[in-house]
Amino acid sequence: MRYTRVAVGGRAVWGRVGEEDIELLSESPLEGDPSVIGSVSIADAQWLPVVVPPVFYAVGMNYPRHIAHAGAETPDRPEVGYRANNALTGHRSPIVKPVEVEGRFEAEPELVAVIGRTLRHATYDEARKSVFGWTIGNDVSARTWQHQDRSFWRSKNSDTFKPMGPWIETDVDALAQTTTLRVNGEVRASFATGDMVFDPFDHIVELTKHITMHAGDVLWMGAESTCQLEPGDTVDIEISGIGVLSNPVHSEGNPS
Amino acid sequence: MRYTRVAVGGRAVWGRVGEEDIELLSESPLEGDPSVIGSVSIADAQWLPVVVPPVFYAVGMNYPRHIAHAGAETPDRPEVGYRANNALTGHRSPIVKPVEVEGRFEAEPELVAVIGRTLRHATYDEARKSVFGWTIGNDVSARTWQHQDRSFWRSKNSDTFKPMGPWIETDVDALAQTTTLRVNGEVRASFATGDMVFDPFDHIVELTKHITMHAGDVLWMGAESTCQLEPGDTVDIEISGIGVLSNPVHSEGNPS
Repeated sequence: MRYTRVAVGGRAVWGRVGEEDIELLSESPLEGDPSVIGSVSIADAQWLPVVVPPVFYAVGMNYPRHIAHAGAETPDRPEVGYRANNALTGHRSPIVKPVEVEGRFEAEPELVAVIGRTLRHATYDEARKSVFGWTIGNDVSARTWQHQDRSFWRSKNSDTFKPMGPWIETDVDALAQTTTLRVNGEVRASFATGDMVFDPFDHIVELTKHITMHAGDVLWMGAESTCQLEPGDTVDIEISGIGVLSNPVHSEGNPS
Repeated sequence: MRYTRVAVGGRAVWGRVGEEDIELLSESPLEGDPSVIGSVSIADAQWLPVVVPPVFYAVGMNYPRHIAHAGAETPDRPEVGYRANNALTGHRSPIVKPVEVEGRFEAEPELVAVIGRTLRHATYDEARKSVFGWTIGNDVSARTWQHQDRSFWRSKNSDTFKPMGPWIETDVDALAQTTTLRVNGEVRASFATGDMVFDPFDHIVELTKHITMHAGDVLWMGAESTCQLEPGDTVDIEISGIGVLSNPVHSEGNPS
């Protein structure tokens, strides 16, 4: 199944995505057994971030080629950082480059696990079963700010810097797929989703030693490659078996 | 006014705190104009974290004496990090020290601003008006983990490490108060809330240059002093004009 959220009459509504239409649902599939209350066509949909997480976890260095490229040390255990919900935006919504951003302004294509239940002290098998489904994230990053600031507050969490979507795919072997990053249709990076130092379930096992995870929490799994974005570009991240997350890049104060 | 949330029949309900009772409210005072739907006595209240924030902002080094003590550089502009909602707990609920924690396990007494409206590109005056009220936070920290890990994920965000309460006080000059940290009734630290490098409104002005803040977001303002906690202790943080946040410290797997 493919679940998402769309804006209908100014309200966020959960939906189940079909071939041409999105069936609107009475409640979150993460929390209950929703019934169908209407539909919108995919062509007209206003896509929202697929979920607003109680906690937004993000893995940093997790792909060997990225670690080698950065000259970083390979992690010896899973760790996470955090991103902020204000930065979330949906499929097809613009990534807005702030006027103050200089230097590299980059896309980072990431596999995202969406947690489906409350869990603590999870085994690896429980961690596998705790994932409701998988989506796609773009960890947009302003590198100059990333190096200037003591935290990632504006380099990675400015408004619109965290596109997530287009939907949550519940039936996919997410670690056996290919991530492809395209800018204006041109392939800029391609890598195997599963080529990670620690996989999502390793992270969930480690996290839940000390932390209770909840339905709707998201775990962004890091990127192997990045690429530069310019206003006017359209950036697509495809993960086979899941879908394509597509966003135009705008300049602040200039919608086109 | 003093607003809080309490557990009633397993459900989180907003309340308005009086002398002996808490009037239960039909909805969040942050979102509407609630009506009274019942009451519980303060003596019987099960206090919850006063709000579950969309984004949980936390200021680090912000008090000159703390900065000098840490040998850190004084920040030249406001910046923030993040904490995670899983770690929140209410007034009178236990802080649970994990069995794996060695070394310093400390309380950090902090003033907390609760945002009351959506704002972006705020002026200093708009920032002042955007604060719905003020509460108290304890930024409990396991120092060995803080030094070992690449992020604060478990050192500051393990379950129960973020007590917040007991209520949101809407009528107080929060920067003209005194913060007092007591362990088992003994004063361990006392400092002026307002002796900050950058105040809450400075932070809101800087943040909202790039970030939209929303009703319910919280901004923890940092601590001047910290102190060690041991299982069996009770830690009280009093901010004059607001109230007292009190939590017992337990050992994991041992409720007393």
